Amino acid sequence: MNYQFAERMTAMKPSIIREILKSSSGQSVIPLAAGNPAAETFPLEAIRSFTESILLENPVAALQYGVTEGYEPLRERLLQHVQQRFQVDTTGNSLMVVSGAQQGIELASKVFCSEGDTIICESPSFIGSLNTFRAAGIRLAGVPMEDDGMDLEQLEAALKREPNVKLIYLIPSFQNPTGITTSLEKRKGIYALASKYDVMILEDNPYGELRFQGEDVPVLKSIDTDQRVIYVGSFSKVLSAGLRVGYVLAPDEVIQKIAVAKQGEDVHTATLPQMIAHRFMTEYDYDAHIRLVCEVYRRKSDLMLQSLEQHMDPVVTFTRPDGGLFLWCELPSSVPMLDYCKQAAASGVAVVPGNAFLVNESEPSQALRLNFSTPSDDQIVRGIEILAQVFEKAKAGI
Amino acid sequence: MNYQFAERMTAMKPSIIREILKSSSGQSVIPLAAGNPAAETFPLEAIRSFTESILLENPVAALQYGVTEGYEPLRERLLQHVQQRFQVDTTGNSLMVVSGAQQGIELASKVFCSEGDTIICESPSFIGSLNTFRAAGIRLAGVPMEDDGMDLEQLEAALKREPNVKLIYLIPSFQNPTGITTSLEKRKGIYALASKYDVMILEDNPYGELRFQGEDVPVLKSIDTDQRVIYVGSFSKVLSAGLRVGYVLAPDEVIQKIAVAKQGEDVHTATLPQMIAHRFMTEYDYDAHIRLVCEVYRRKSDLMLQSLEQHMDPVVTFTRPDGGLFLWCELPSSVPMLDYCKQAAASGVAVVPGNAFLVNESEPSQALRLNFSTPSDDQIVRGIEILAQVFEKAKAGI
Repeated sequence: MNYQFAERMTAMKPSIIREILKSSSGQSVIPLAAGNPAAETFPLEAIRSFTESILLENPVAALQYGVTEGYEPLRERLLQHVQQRFQVDTTGNSLMVVSGAQQGIELASKVFCSEGDTIICESPSFIGSLNTFRAAGIRLAGVPMEDDGMDLEQLEAALKREPNVKLIYLIPSFQNPTGITTSLEKRKGIYALASKYDVMILEDNPYGELRFQGEDVPVLKSIDTDQRVIYVGSFSKVLSAGLRVGYVLAPDEVIQKIAVAKQGEDVHTATLPQMIAHRFMTEYDYDAHIRLVCEVYRRKSDLMLQSLEQHMDPVVTFTRPDGGLFLWCELPSSVPMLDYCKQAAASGVAVVPGNAFLVNESEPSQALRLNFSTPSDDQIVRGIEILAQVFEKAKAGI
Repeated sequence: MNYQFAERMTAMKPSIIREILKSSSGQSVIPLAAGNPAAETFPLEAIRSFTESILLENPVAALQYGVTEGYEPLRERLLQHVQQRFQVDTTGNSLMVVSGAQQGIELASKVFCSEGDTIICESPSFIGSLNTFRAAGIRLAGVPMEDDGMDLEQLEAALKREPNVKLIYLIPSFQNPTGITTSLEKRKGIYALASKYDVMILEDNPYGELRFQGEDVPVLKSIDTDQRVIYVGSFSKVLSAGLRVGYVLAPDEVIQKIAVAKQGEDVHTATLPQMIAHRFMTEYDYDAHIRLVCEVYRRKSDLMLQSLEQHMDPVVTFTRPDGGLFLWCELPSSVPMLDYCKQAAASGVAVVPGNAFLVNESEPSQALRLNFSTPSDDQIVRGIEILAQVFEKAKAGI
């Protein structure tokens, strides 16, 4: 039969990244396109031991229906964590568990936006979130990124220009895809503009604890004097992505609406993964583990940067992230980016073309995203060597 | 600040059932309001052993990102299962894993319905699904239930009358809340009307394998000659509710859209629970386990029916389900239902007032839902005794 899908779904396609991953999984392609945490950072022994204890000591709670807001001991521990780690005053706010940060972002947009409303986002930004907003029929307005975060003049112009702006969505630390960290000055500027135009802020911070050099920059939630920040965190990059556990910290009234919306989506997040996350935070040396994860990513980031410096033509520029999983390359205008990415894939290296992260994918882009968390050290070195060779050929017009 | 939620969210409230459960959890209230599977049916030893094996043999797959459509071995096994158990010809269809049946229902409505579109549903119907549709701004049109399913004349009248009908939503076996099973004749009638008016059918079958007496009735998906049925199944009632694993079987093109929508909600269902479900279906005597679960529910259902016959005034009528978790009581018009439910709660027995399951909650209802899977045998007997006493007092106007 001829299926009549909802209008806003007709143009939706699967994320290009997930399609790239699916098509290249199990093959010999070097994965610089993914965003997977390094499997070597999973605390396997601890997860085995915690899971065994949970299923011996408290099996019915792990397997029975739970409350929508999440496993209470985990909620309490996470509230302490954001207070202590990020100096957030949580008065008047509640924390609830969600099925990965992606769900937190989706639910926040669902409770605030009707079809046709606008979300202002960084451009480029995380394709997963952009697609979530698109699937809900939400308009996107992109604000160009500078080296220290959104261009504030253009942010204000967008706030003036765009109709029905409900949220400003941003990834302030080690942004996906650029690796850029928004400066404190800009964070304050963004917050001031959100206040001036009375718009909510959706702060997506999945990489916030993965700083491997430099000084912490306060999260927007820590300067949220008028309770307009919805903060989303995740265990995906610090414990395990496959367990699908994230959390949302937001004003009580907002959490109440998000809980109702979540009830209609998946009733509650799977309990066993929540209980594993809770033990990880209470019976493990969490801080030491984060240091270990950061050490792995510092090494991999350094290796990728060194390889780029050693092999890549210096006309290709790239960001130098202080944390996270990604860096962002810009090709000179003489080399068409999409052709370059296709050549790279044909030569055995998967990267993500930069236009995938734009509000309007058909806009020109000379950028591409490189991920250093998924590949092995050898794959990083070999992958960059190949990318450099492909560039030489492309430049020579071969 | 003054939060401006999306219009369709403003009237949304948490499910009355989940609120009742939250307020009565850990207290001495007899839980006839819940819909939890009996914890005694969880195969604890097997789950422990499967989980241990998974985390020893395949830990990285369990903890790393997975594909949105679900863990491939589980998808394959489930496809065989619906073919064999329900005689479904799956040609042209795909099966994907979702985070509980609730997510399958939500995603199906998301890809087909825009705000203001209509879903026709049984009345009464499962409050969780009704709230999911409401949160999406979807109009609901209820068709009264008869002893053998929807009133077909009223279904056709609704199909003629209602604008932009996209789905007919139904729970054909052991319906929540009534316990009614739609007859084969009516299933064929519903399917014929869906074909005549070119509307999709959303078949929600979480209890389908929990038949404890009588003969199986074919699922609608098994008579789906023109590929208009979206079939949703679940592990919540046969393995564990807290693991949040369900599945959707639908035409390939529909599954592709649902996968894109799911990607934006939670990327994928937690992998460890999927792998546990897979081992449960391949390394355990699944059929014997289902027989055991059905035996438990047959016993509990019998006990509740016997207690009702023994203690309750015969002017109170009730359904006699052949499976599932619920039965449906109707009070005579002389006893106001809501007052009666409040009196029951005050006397220590939680039940759900029937109007909670109506498309329009403010319509009159003399019904209430009783659950026999959650309470212990003693709680069933004691709970019905108390309900009978409360009825005597209410009837006497005390």
